Amino acid sequence: MPLFERVLVEVPQDGDPDTTSYQIESVTEGRPVALQRDLSCQPQGLRSAAVKAGIKYPDVYDTCVVVMDKPGAAAGIFTRNRSAAPAVLIDREHLADGRAQALVVLSKNANAFTPTDRDDALRVCGLVAGHIGAPVSDVMISCTGVIGVKLPMPVVEAGVTKALASLQPGLVPETAQAILTTDKGPKVCSMRFGGVNVAAMAKGAGMIEPNMATMLVYFFTDLAVEQAELQRMLVRAADKTFNSISVDSDTSTSDSLILFSTGAVPATPERLRDFEAALAAMMLKLAVDVVYGAEGATKLIEARVNGAVSTQSAREVARMIVNSPLVKTAVFGCDPNWGRIAMAIGKPGQQQTSTIDVRRVVIRMNGVTLFAKGEAVPLQLKELSADMRARKKIDIEVELGEGDGSWTAWGCDLSYDYVKENADYTS
Amino acid sequence: MPLFERVLVEVPQDGDPDTTSYQIESVTEGRPVALQRDLSCQPQGLRSAAVKAGIKYPDVYDTCVVVMDKPGAAAGIFTRNRSAAPAVLIDREHLADGRAQALVVLSKNANAFTPTDRDDALRVCGLVAGHIGAPVSDVMISCTGVIGVKLPMPVVEAGVTKALASLQPGLVPETAQAILTTDKGPKVCSMRFGGVNVAAMAKGAGMIEPNMATMLVYFFTDLAVEQAELQRMLVRAADKTFNSISVDSDTSTSDSLILFSTGAVPATPERLRDFEAALAAMMLKLAVDVVYGAEGATKLIEARVNGAVSTQSAREVARMIVNSPLVKTAVFGCDPNWGRIAMAIGKPGQQQTSTIDVRRVVIRMNGVTLFAKGEAVPLQLKELSADMRARKKIDIEVELGEGDGSWTAWGCDLSYDYVKENADYTS
Repeated sequence: MPLFERVLVEVPQDGDPDTTSYQIESVTEGRPVALQRDLSCQPQGLRSAAVKAGIKYPDVYDTCVVVMDKPGAAAGIFTRNRSAAPAVLIDREHLADGRAQALVVLSKNANAFTPTDRDDALRVCGLVAGHIGAPVSDVMISCTGVIGVKLPMPVVEAGVTKALASLQPGLVPETAQAILTTDKGPKVCSMRFGGVNVAAMAKGAGMIEPNMATMLVYFFTDLAVEQAELQRMLVRAADKTFNSISVDSDTSTSDSLILFSTGAVPATPERLRDFEAALAAMMLKLAVDVVYGAEGATKLIEARVNGAVSTQSAREVARMIVNSPLVKTAVFGCDPNWGRIAMAIGKPGQQQTSTIDVRRVVIRMNGVTLFAKGEAVPLQLKELSADMRARKKIDIEVELGEGDGSWTAWGCDLSYDYVKENADYTS
Repeated sequence: MPLFERVLVEVPQDGDPDTTSYQIESVTEGRPVALQRDLSCQPQGLRSAAVKAGIKYPDVYDTCVVVMDKPGAAAGIFTRNRSAAPAVLIDREHLADGRAQALVVLSKNANAFTPTDRDDALRVCGLVAGHIGAPVSDVMISCTGVIGVKLPMPVVEAGVTKALASLQPGLVPETAQAILTTDKGPKVCSMRFGGVNVAAMAKGAGMIEPNMATMLVYFFTDLAVEQAELQRMLVRAADKTFNSISVDSDTSTSDSLILFSTGAVPATPERLRDFEAALAAMMLKLAVDVVYGAEGATKLIEARVNGAVSTQSAREVARMIVNSPLVKTAVFGCDPNWGRIAMAIGKPGQQQTSTIDVRRVVIRMNGVTLFAKGEAVPLQLKELSADMRARKKIDIEVELGEGDGSWTAWGCDLSYDYVKENADYTS
């Protein structure tokens, strides 16, 4: 059964994305289980703390620590950027044995492209390991923020020490604050089913593009899952969610998706099945939150491609639609410009070779057919434009008529504010 | 000898790009030959005309015809977009025999994604062929403008007929007007050396991205070049010029680069060598003109990558720099943000696999080293920003320290006006 068939997601057509309904049908309980928009479903077997260390600003949360009661299975997906930050390289090394016991996140500084970046990251891991009595290789670390500025180590060490001294049971809400940079607000969710708890938090505002070169995302569960299975589930769910969103096609050097298991709740086949569905629902929720909350975004674009020669081809075409600056500016301008979609679907890629047969192509926007059977459908463009203006989410659906491949990707429009926020960032 | 070693190009650091100096050292004459910024060096053996047919607007040039006195060798490179317009598909068919005698260009309408697009394009080719007494397959056609709107055939046929009745010797300046859409103005140049003349015109304002999915460009020469050689020269020069520029990473469905030879001047080895150098210089001139004149562009970005594992890798990295929205917005904001360059050079691509060794990376902007030996160079960022503000062209130079591969690509910044122009286009 496809992973998403049991996940019922309704992204809002207007207004607050927080009204989105996300439900999964629980195998164990035989009824829909709702996704919580907070951290109320707390995994057993972990403690956490967040502090205002003062890494860049005096009075904001910038440091958090999460510590499992004992080492557990962990899985991760990291940026493919070749300039990956030391924290990412260290996490890959530390995850080689498939287990972890702690996470430390420093924000407002990427700790990358400085002469001491790797050493500084290892020192922080060592500090945490020493405090909890674990091997350094069981500590995961992430850093996010400005590139090329050395970490203020005395400030960082004092902050981490303070956090370790103030650990509280469960995932405290301030941890979701502490991982943010230019985000509008924290992104969290949690679920409970059959005695299993899953809680997650995400950070991401720009440089959002597939290949997990994207953002910081942490999942915590008390379900005891074997590590290879945990990694497989993580990759499968991320592929259709975090790896199918794009803000600006840029990929960051720091970003990471890590899934920790405390192992407090024994696995059963039903719980494992529910867990995978829950992961998918929660990742979709957070992925859409990231796009809605992207720098300068005013609208979410959902691009569905059907009838491609293969799934990979459908995926490539869907990405081309959500990455096209001309499609993105048209959506910002509420212009139902299907000609730009026709251009975007033909962009040369790795999966496509033959010429598109335009007689088979159908292009729909918000359920209205704009192009079919080789010609434009006569429509009142002003009405369509007014309809676009009223929506927060624009649905683009393309039928290629070449095969059975389908994919959905999410992106956002390209607005004045994207340019403004990114033209004014550092100096 | 590398094609470009004998081409001396100086792109202006400020002010009018028309002050750029382009020279090639003539082999036959042993002295530099200047590139003319007009069509004063007219190839022998062709006639042309442009008219205001009224395809979309009543009083603008929108139709032009160029007719060679006799069929000659022709070479072409066309968009790789899978939604390529009928004119492109027809041109590929008509060029299969490597010869052509006429060019007809219709602007303000792309003649694509309509039920009669192919038939209409063939009718126009037939009209021209009938008038000049040539096979239809010797007529090349291009159409550019809005997608999905049927050509007004009575208007088009009247316009083409009128143009055919008013052919003048040489390439009249109005032809360069007639091929434009949202361009700020015509882009032309010409050269004369050793009795050979070359004249060229280009059109391009958005959707500019490598793979020749870019724009309309026409070259005319009176030098008699064998067709296979003509195609080889065209591809080689385009690779380093038109295929190394990018405005917004979108690729159009209509665009074409065609090189026509009237054959009036016999070839000699010296003339052929000079011709290839002239092609390179002229293409570089027009390619830079296209980027300078791009929708909403305020600055030209020249990205030079050295020390890549291969030429292909250098090319991919150079493109990533000029295509990165975060680099483009930083340049618009006059922010010497080398961290974004560090991010862009690591973006996952086809040619790159291993992690970048940041200790070997050097990043320079406008000749100033910003990052080297694994750390940022302490600099007055305000002064650098003021320097960027004063320039029309921003030079980004990256040393990867991985090998000997080098490439240069050109792009432009991402401004409010790009968003504005593209959010307001059609409806």
